[in-house]
Amino acid sequence: MRTERLERLERALGHTFLRRELLQQAVTHRSYGTPHNERIEFLGDSVLNCVIAARLFELFPGLREGELSRLRANLVRQETLFAIAQELTLGNYLRLGEGELKSGGFRRPSILADALEALFGAIFLEAGFEAARSVILRLYDAQFKAIDPRQAGKDPKTALQEILQGRRLALPQYVLLTTRGEAHAQEFEVECRVAELDVCVRGIGSSRRSAEQEAAQQVCRILDGR
Amino acid sequence: MRTERLERLERALGHTFLRRELLQQAVTHRSYGTPHNERIEFLGDSVLNCVIAARLFELFPGLREGELSRLRANLVRQETLFAIAQELTLGNYLRLGEGELKSGGFRRPSILADALEALFGAIFLEAGFEAARSVILRLYDAQFKAIDPRQAGKDPKTALQEILQGRRLALPQYVLLTTRGEAHAQEFEVECRVAELDVCVRGIGSSRRSAEQEAAQQVCRILDGR
Repeated sequence: MRTERLERLERALGHTFLRRELLQQAVTHRSYGTPHNERIEFLGDSVLNCVIAARLFELFPGLREGELSRLRANLVRQETLFAIAQELTLGNYLRLGEGELKSGGFRRPSILADALEALFGAIFLEAGFEAARSVILRLYDAQFKAIDPRQAGKDPKTALQEILQGRRLALPQYVLLTTRGEAHAQEFEVECRVAELDVCVRGIGSSRRSAEQEAAQQVCRILDGR
Repeated sequence: MRTERLERLERALGHTFLRRELLQQAVTHRSYGTPHNERIEFLGDSVLNCVIAARLFELFPGLREGELSRLRANLVRQETLFAIAQELTLGNYLRLGEGELKSGGFRRPSILADALEALFGAIFLEAGFEAARSVILRLYDAQFKAIDPRQAGKDPKTALQEILQGRRLALPQYVLLTTRGEAHAQEFEVECRVAELDVCVRGIGSSRRSAEQEAAQQVCRILDGR
């Protein structure tokens, strides 16, 4: 494959390969011949699972194991990988055998999803876990932003309450500080205080409740970091 | 829990915790109260899967994806984790609720396996992937050594042959170089050469065949690194 084409893929991934042959292998479907990407895909799949698990753990301190598992399953399934592969126009870089080429294999979700996982595996192999993590999180940015905290299980206020109860601490106090704007476009500012932990943050929202949720979310993140 | 007890566990793990409360949380079963180890176990499970996948990938260059998956499933299942937890005498460090304590929960395979995974998750959280990897690989050392390469799928000679055929190269040539020692304790030295790839390595074994396998294994590793 011409070098400038692979460089375009490297730019889209945000990673420049030291071992160009690993990049080649990652985009090589088994129909093309060996070395192909099946083994590296096995590796990439497990790296992806780990990176996504760690990110969900961090983002949703109030979620239980089962809910984290469900969210992860959603993020690592073929459909999600396929969508990201399409954004990368990964189909343009695949090496496929004659048969797959003719039958449109470069558009097939399973082939594209596998190649994307193989790319994660190749980055892990040559540059380590942190390099793979940073590429994966950048590519998954929109997916993480699209997670609805309500779908993700508990809302932040409930999550915070459970965390505090778990530590045998008093419930947080929410105080409405200000209300701004006209009736149809009001903005609320709320303070959330956990006295025993010396934590006090402010949240803003278009309703009192959403301002409280925003503040609770921030407190959850602070507590998870302690 | 008394500090010296936790220090004994840290020594067995080969990791000293910066955040002692994370270690406490990892050995706390949900029956004891919160914060318990369920969320960290979710994280640890995925770290373990990734570390084991990477190690198998490296150790068995001749194995295909499906065979690697089977081996991994065997290494991360409850039984294996339970065996390692027993070596660590992890039951001595668990925090369990009254009921579990009375019914012998500190000996229960699922509780011990989960706590071990939680420990991996806790190390990952505070010290990163490489720290978790080194603890896991040390604890899994005996498990990896016990993998029978025949059970693990193909023997190295077969694996090498398949790799070369896949790359459309000629088969390797094996040449017996020397035979040493007396009849009941002979040692064979064999050379394995892949001319087209400019690779030539020597293997030693107690039979001609085992010397060839040893040489083939080395060639597989070299080719996987290219």
